[in-house]
Amino acid sequence: MASASLQALPGFRDFIPRECAVRNYLFETWRGVARRFGFVEYESPVIEDTALYLRKSGGELSAQLFRFEDQGGRDVTLRPEVTASLARIAARHQRDFPKPIKWFEIGQCFRYEKPQKGRGREFHQFNVDIIGEAGPAADAELIALSIETMLAFGFQQGDFVVRVSDRDAWTAFAKQHGVADEAIPGLLNLIDKIERESPEELDRKLAPHGLDTAMLRRFIADEAANASPAWREIQADLAARGLEGFVELDLSIVRGLAYYTGVVFEVFDARKSMRAVAGGGRYDTLVSTISDGSVDLPASGFAMGDYVIRNLIEETTHAAMQLEVWLQRNAAASDVRLVIAEESLRPVALDIATRLRRAGVSVDFPLASAKVAKQFQAAEKSGARFALVVGSEFPALKLKVLASRTEEDCDNVTLVDWLTDRLQQPDGPLLA
Amino acid sequence: MASASLQALPGFRDFIPRECAVRNYLFETWRGVARRFGFVEYESPVIEDTALYLRKSGGELSAQLFRFEDQGGRDVTLRPEVTASLARIAARHQRDFPKPIKWFEIGQCFRYEKPQKGRGREFHQFNVDIIGEAGPAADAELIALSIETMLAFGFQQGDFVVRVSDRDAWTAFAKQHGVADEAIPGLLNLIDKIERESPEELDRKLAPHGLDTAMLRRFIADEAANASPAWREIQADLAARGLEGFVELDLSIVRGLAYYTGVVFEVFDARKSMRAVAGGGRYDTLVSTISDGSVDLPASGFAMGDYVIRNLIEETTHAAMQLEVWLQRNAAASDVRLVIAEESLRPVALDIATRLRRAGVSVDFPLASAKVAKQFQAAEKSGARFALVVGSEFPALKLKVLASRTEEDCDNVTLVDWLTDRLQQPDGPLLA
Repeated sequence: MASASLQALPGFRDFIPRECAVRNYLFETWRGVARRFGFVEYESPVIEDTALYLRKSGGELSAQLFRFEDQGGRDVTLRPEVTASLARIAARHQRDFPKPIKWFEIGQCFRYEKPQKGRGREFHQFNVDIIGEAGPAADAELIALSIETMLAFGFQQGDFVVRVSDRDAWTAFAKQHGVADEAIPGLLNLIDKIERESPEELDRKLAPHGLDTAMLRRFIADEAANASPAWREIQADLAARGLEGFVELDLSIVRGLAYYTGVVFEVFDARKSMRAVAGGGRYDTLVSTISDGSVDLPASGFAMGDYVIRNLIEETTHAAMQLEVWLQRNAAASDVRLVIAEESLRPVALDIATRLRRAGVSVDFPLASAKVAKQFQAAEKSGARFALVVGSEFPALKLKVLASRTEEDCDNVTLVDWLTDRLQQPDGPLLA
Repeated sequence: MASASLQALPGFRDFIPRECAVRNYLFETWRGVARRFGFVEYESPVIEDTALYLRKSGGELSAQLFRFEDQGGRDVTLRPEVTASLARIAARHQRDFPKPIKWFEIGQCFRYEKPQKGRGREFHQFNVDIIGEAGPAADAELIALSIETMLAFGFQQGDFVVRVSDRDAWTAFAKQHGVADEAIPGLLNLIDKIERESPEELDRKLAPHGLDTAMLRRFIADEAANASPAWREIQADLAARGLEGFVELDLSIVRGLAYYTGVVFEVFDARKSMRAVAGGGRYDTLVSTISDGSVDLPASGFAMGDYVIRNLIEETTHAAMQLEVWLQRNAAASDVRLVIAEESLRPVALDIATRLRRAGVSVDFPLASAKVAKQFQAAEKSGARFALVVGSEFPALKLKVLASRTEEDCDNVTLVDWLTDRLQQPDGPLLA
């Protein structure tokens, strides 16, 4: 056996308590915003039959998958994303739900990529989807939700921008220039590379379509003329919500994946790296593709991963401060640490801990006998707000406010009511 | 490509919203109890180097693993449990945390077993562990937490029992009967089978140790004489908490796994099947084993899976009722459904939805134009508490209480404060 490595596998994270707390902050914020928008939570399986991803992609699979044969000889894959599963589940269960179906999932996904800053082999993804509504109002609802998610994290106007585009505008462009229907997906792939590939290389690839880079750039630049009807509806919808300042039309966005069918959008970091924080769009044919045509439902959705948003939060002062305040408030293992001044009073302390815990108070106490000074040190280090001293004055008790080092009196009989109320009060200097 | 199956893989679950809500109920209850006990949350990776599980088990691995080679040629395994990871993480990071470390994890685990009622190939597990405290007070804290978890789910005394045992009692028994140290693990394995194997078969296997089934049974029966000092301390500790009625000494419990070193316990369904709902114990050598001796910390912990506890909740009237009440309260996708009485008022509705959502109210509205009657039907079906009618009286608004079909007046300017307050009030007949 190799000598013990205490590391996780490359690209995998140990969520020690502080990391887990940050993760929980992301999850709570995501969950909170989605629920306020009337979305309900579901979760798809972590492992799926590889055939599901093959159906979604039209037979071509990324090489970057955790794909293996299970003990029953099945070709299975750890989910690289959840939309394929969602389409399967929606096709299977859609009869049980009135349309539109508004669902969200927070789930871990897996891709065998080179680990680097801002990218691991696992990541958590927030997925929000509307199934069964074809109109742009669904896209607008999703874009609004993506904006409100950013605001909920403490980002402000100017920190980020949502770039909206519509593949239908490009389909119209392609038809106008005589590009054959079957060549359009290939053309969209070229457009997707417009900011990454050299104009010469792109020109070479566009030539067979009778197009060149300059024509694409002119089309993108002339937004007013080329905006799709869907974009105009989305713009009006978001304006009614007071969110028009967060979005812009950007026809250079097409998103690489073949399954998008109409409106697509990306949330960008507007201040630094212009990284995409979230992205999504309309995928009206996927449910049909996944179900071999047995169920046909329009759909739209977006996903936000935990890596980029966390980095962006930590780089953005006001968002980082909000996270720190949340962590401070949630860092302590307990609200109250019992200090057992005499070991003979341990049974009394156990009784007090039990009653307070049942009343919803988070309580900790030393599991082994220890000097009082050491117990106070541990209490302070733990971040607890109060130390409750169980000593010879029992049934009288002393509550020490650890931040201000002030002291308050209470007693065993009224303790639970008194302390649950006391926890609601601030710790400033008490009124005389 | 095979024709589309809409099923998940055998043994895997689609958590559609109701299933996801039940899952969230389990998670919230687990998390709530653990936090009240002063435990903090961590999470280990879903995939680990298979060598980690080999080290834990001493080289023998269950055949029931999702084990595969990743793209980098590593022998990796989807976690079948989390204690091996916890020991690794604790060994790696223990210097950063004061002892004892009180940590919990809620995580999905994977075992390639035959799917059946009450067992899948994935399951969620609640793991609670104390690392760095060798005394029975830590075991008592964990046993108390397991009991309070059951009480938090609505179980009552008589529904379940915690059977506590101590491997040290059996070690003393073995030594007393001249069993060699190296034969003790094998003997513990035989004791573990005492309720499943025939006395004849067991006798045959015990003979080489100079023992027979009757001797084991006598030892188990004579609890008063054979209880270990740790049990007596645990019993006194739990009595101080008022929990003595939930535990009993049962030396027939040894738990199969080789890595347990002292006190072990199981939470049993006491009314029907005597299934184990949770189990755990002391594993004082595991951190050292996992870290090749570089870190040595005593440890104790237990795990509760989601399958058995959920079945038990659903079979136990008062626990099932509590779950139903929780589901009812959490089933609605939104608190408030907007009814857009005239499509021209959609911008007003979008503005109202945005303001209410930012104030924390869960709000939904029709994404497509629909007749008012249909919107009310959808609102009622959704389980929303209120329908807020945006109609020609705007800026006056009508709030319909969907359960009582009563109506209240409000207006656009004061709406947010009024409605957030209204949501705190009950829906009984209003006072005149």
